[in-house]
Amino acid sequence: MAESWATLGVDLHLEPAGAGGLRRGLTDALRDAVRTGRLAPGTRLPSSRTLAGDLGIARNTVAEAYADLVAEGWLTARQGSGTRVSERAVVPPSGPARQPRVPARPTHNLVPGTPDLAAFPRAEWARAARRALTAAPNEALGYGDPRGRVELRTALAGYLARVRGVRADPDNLVVTAGFSHALRVLGQVLRARGVRSVAVESYGLDVYWGLLQTAGLATPALPWDELGTDTRALGTEGAVLLTPAHQFPMGMPLHHDRRAAVVDWARRNDSLVLEDDYDGEFRYDRQPVGALQGLDPDRVVYLGTASKSLAPGIRLGWMVLPPALAEEVIGAKGHADTVGVLEQLTLAEFLTSGAYDRQVRSARLRYRRRRDALTAAVAERAPGVHVTGIAAGLHAVLRLPPGTEPSVIQAAAWQGLALHGLSFHRHPEARAEHVDALVVGYGTPPDSAWSAALEALCRALP
Amino acid sequence: MAESWATLGVDLHLEPAGAGGLRRGLTDALRDAVRTGRLAPGTRLPSSRTLAGDLGIARNTVAEAYADLVAEGWLTARQGSGTRVSERAVVPPSGPARQPRVPARPTHNLVPGTPDLAAFPRAEWARAARRALTAAPNEALGYGDPRGRVELRTALAGYLARVRGVRADPDNLVVTAGFSHALRVLGQVLRARGVRSVAVESYGLDVYWGLLQTAGLATPALPWDELGTDTRALGTEGAVLLTPAHQFPMGMPLHHDRRAAVVDWARRNDSLVLEDDYDGEFRYDRQPVGALQGLDPDRVVYLGTASKSLAPGIRLGWMVLPPALAEEVIGAKGHADTVGVLEQLTLAEFLTSGAYDRQVRSARLRYRRRRDALTAAVAERAPGVHVTGIAAGLHAVLRLPPGTEPSVIQAAAWQGLALHGLSFHRHPEARAEHVDALVVGYGTPPDSAWSAALEALCRALP
Repeated sequence: MAESWATLGVDLHLEPAGAGGLRRGLTDALRDAVRTGRLAPGTRLPSSRTLAGDLGIARNTVAEAYADLVAEGWLTARQGSGTRVSERAVVPPSGPARQPRVPARPTHNLVPGTPDLAAFPRAEWARAARRALTAAPNEALGYGDPRGRVELRTALAGYLARVRGVRADPDNLVVTAGFSHALRVLGQVLRARGVRSVAVESYGLDVYWGLLQTAGLATPALPWDELGTDTRALGTEGAVLLTPAHQFPMGMPLHHDRRAAVVDWARRNDSLVLEDDYDGEFRYDRQPVGALQGLDPDRVVYLGTASKSLAPGIRLGWMVLPPALAEEVIGAKGHADTVGVLEQLTLAEFLTSGAYDRQVRSARLRYRRRRDALTAAVAERAPGVHVTGIAAGLHAVLRLPPGTEPSVIQAAAWQGLALHGLSFHRHPEARAEHVDALVVGYGTPPDSAWSAALEALCRALP
Repeated sequence: MAESWATLGVDLHLEPAGAGGLRRGLTDALRDAVRTGRLAPGTRLPSSRTLAGDLGIARNTVAEAYADLVAEGWLTARQGSGTRVSERAVVPPSGPARQPRVPARPTHNLVPGTPDLAAFPRAEWARAARRALTAAPNEALGYGDPRGRVELRTALAGYLARVRGVRADPDNLVVTAGFSHALRVLGQVLRARGVRSVAVESYGLDVYWGLLQTAGLATPALPWDELGTDTRALGTEGAVLLTPAHQFPMGMPLHHDRRAAVVDWARRNDSLVLEDDYDGEFRYDRQPVGALQGLDPDRVVYLGTASKSLAPGIRLGWMVLPPALAEEVIGAKGHADTVGVLEQLTLAEFLTSGAYDRQVRSARLRYRRRRDALTAAVAERAPGVHVTGIAAGLHAVLRLPPGTEPSVIQAAAWQGLALHGLSFHRHPEARAEHVDALVVGYGTPPDSAWSAALEALCRALP
C-alpha cells in the first residue's frame, strides 16, 4: 500500500505487513524517504500521534520506527525541537539522488522574509519581458556595464526618488542579484578600506551578520531600548547596518532623533550607513517613512530589493552609492557577478510602464487585509498576546507572556506551522532585555492557505 | 562653436575639436540634448548623412556618435525605424555628467569572445520564457537552492553528457552567472583549502588570471611548444586552468599525450583541473573533442557557459564539480550570488525542447561560412599571412611576418577596426617563443557588418 503522508505531502510506500510487520515496513519507508531526499535534512517530522492518525496505525508503531531511525542516525530527537531528519543523513557520492539543501515545506508557513509567491504578476511580467526583449538593442546581449543596464538604473533612480525620497544618480546606482549580493560586495570593499567592524542592530538576520563576518568584519550589536535601536552609542565603527524605515523584525521606524544622530555620527567619524530598505513600499498607516539616504547621499548606501515587492526568485536588488565609494564598489563587483540583462530590462519596463506601481498597490491592499485579520483574530482568541510592529511590512511581532516563547514555537510545530521566535532574530551579544515573542510573516502564505495558517497560529497561542 | 541643427531646430554645442575630437564632441552634445530633454523621447533623428551635411562634418563621425549613444542607451536603432531618442532616456535632476563605463564601439569589431548578438534567437527565447513562467511552480519564485533550479541542472547534465561526454550528476552541477563567476568562487575555495598557486597557459585571458590573483593565488605559466601547452611540466600547483577542447586563443586541442598527463598529475598530486570549455560545441572539421572531465570526474571541474552559444548578456554558466568539492563550492557560493530563476527555467526549457540544439547547429553553420570566407580572403589578399586555429570556435589566429604585429594593429585602428594582437593574450611570464599574430573574432560582427569588417581587416594586413 502506498500511504500518503498528508502532513508533508510525501508518499510512504508501506509494504503489506510481512515478516517484519508494520514497524519494519514504516521504518524502511521512512529511511528510504530520507535516503532519497524526499525528506530533506532538518525537516521536522510530525508527532507520532499525528503520523499514526494519518496512516491509521498504532501510535506505538510510529514511535518505535522513529526510535529505530534515531538509533541508525537517520533522524535526531532533541528536547524541545521534536524529531527531525538528521543533517548528516546525506547519501554517498555515487548515489543518484542526494538531498536538495532546501528544506521540505511544512503545512503552514509564517516564516517572515518571503512575499506571497502566488501573487507574482506572471502575465504582466511575461508581457514586460516580451516587450523588453523586442526593444533591446543587440549590444544589450553582450558583456555589459558592471553596474547593470542603463535603462534599469535610470528607471530605478526615478522610482526611488519619487517613492522613497532617495537622491539617486543612475551613474552611482548598481544593480545586484539581491540584497545579500550587495552586502557581500560592500563587506569586501569596507574590509579592503581597512574597516574592522560594522555595527548592527540587536535584532536582525543572522545571515547578514554572517556575510559581514565572512568578509573579516566584526559585527557588534547596538543597544536596544523602548524606542528601538540606539544609534547614539555608535563609536569608531567604520559603518553601521540599519533597517531605518521598518526595523527588522521589530517593526518600528528608527526614532527621528536617532536618524539625525546616525547621520551626524557618520559625518563626524568618516563612516558609512548601510540602509537596508527591504520593504519600504509596504506602509499602511500613513505616508512611507522616507529613506535615510535623502539626509546625506554622501554617507548613506541605500540598499533595496525586488524580493518583497515581486519575488526573491528574480534575484534583483540595487544599491545607490555615495559618489566617493562608487568606483571601489563597481570594481569589486566587476563583471564576474553581473545580473542577466533580460531580467534587468524586464524590470525597467515594469517600472516605466507603471506595472510595478500597480503590483505594489495591490499587494499592499492584500497584505493590509491580512494584517487586520491577524490583529483581530489574536485579539479575540489570545487576549494575552499583543500584536506589534504592524504599521508596515509583511510581518508582525506577537509579544507573548514571559517564558512562553519556546512552548509556543513547539505548539506551532505540532500544528505543522513554521514560524520564527524572536530569539531566532536576536544578536548573540544583543544589548537588549529579553522579550518572548513570535515573528509572524503574514505575507508568506498564498491566499488559499492564509486562513488555515492563521487558524493554526491561533491554536498554538497561549 | 554652437552649430544649429537645422533638421530639428536644436542647438548642438560642439566644442572645438580637442583631445577627444569631433566624434567625442558630437557624442557629448547629443547626449546632453537628450539628457536635458531638448530632444524628447521617441524623437527620430536625421540620417547620419543628413546630419553630417548640416554640421559640415564627415558622415562616419555622426554614425560613430550615434553608435556610441545607442551603446549607452540614450538612442535606439532599429531596422526600419531609424535612430530614435530612447523612450527611457530620462534622468533625474541631480545627475552631473559622468561618462558611463561602456567603451565606445569602433566601426568594425573583430575582438574575440562575443558571438554574433544579432543572431540571438529572440523569438524562440521569448516563447521558451513564456512557457517556463507558465509552468513554474510558485515555490520556484522563492529563495532557492544555491546550486540553481533542479530543472536546469537536470537538463544540463543530460545535454553535457550527450554533447560533451561530461559525466554529470545534477546534484554536483552548479548554475552560475557565467564562467567568471564560477572561477571567482573556485578561486576562493582553492585558497581556503590552502592552495597557493594555479598553473595557467602561456596564452589566455588576463581577466581570468586576475580573478585568481584577487583570490590570493599565484598564476604561473606552463611552457608552450609547437604542440601547445605542455602539461608535463606541472609540479606542486594545487590546480591548473586549461582550455583543452580549443586552446584560447591559439586554437588547437590539448595534445592527447598531454590530456593523459594532466589527469595523471592531478591524481598523483591530489590536485584539480579546471576545464574551461567555452566553445566546445563549435567544432567544424570533425566530431567535437570530448571534455577532459570524462577522464576523471573526481579530479576535473568542468566549466561551461551560454555566453558563446547564446549570448553573454543572459549571464548563465555552469560547473560540474567533483563530489568531494561540491559542498565547499556550494557553501562558498551560498545564496548571495544565485542566478534569476526565470532565466534558469527558460534555459532548461530551451534545452529540453531542442531549441538549444537548433540554435547551435544554425550558428555553427554561419560561423563556419565566415571562417571559410576569412581563410579565402586572407589567402588571396595577404598571402604572407597564415590563418591557424580554425578547426573550431569563433575566432582564428592570423600569423604575421615577424615584427609586424604592432603596425598591423595600428593600421587596423585607422580602419576603425578593433581586434587583438596575440601579445594581448600572452601571459606576462609566458614560457613561449614570441609570435607575431592577430586574434580575429569572426563570430563577433552581425551578418550585416561582417563583409565590411573582413574588408577592413584585409586592408590592414601586410
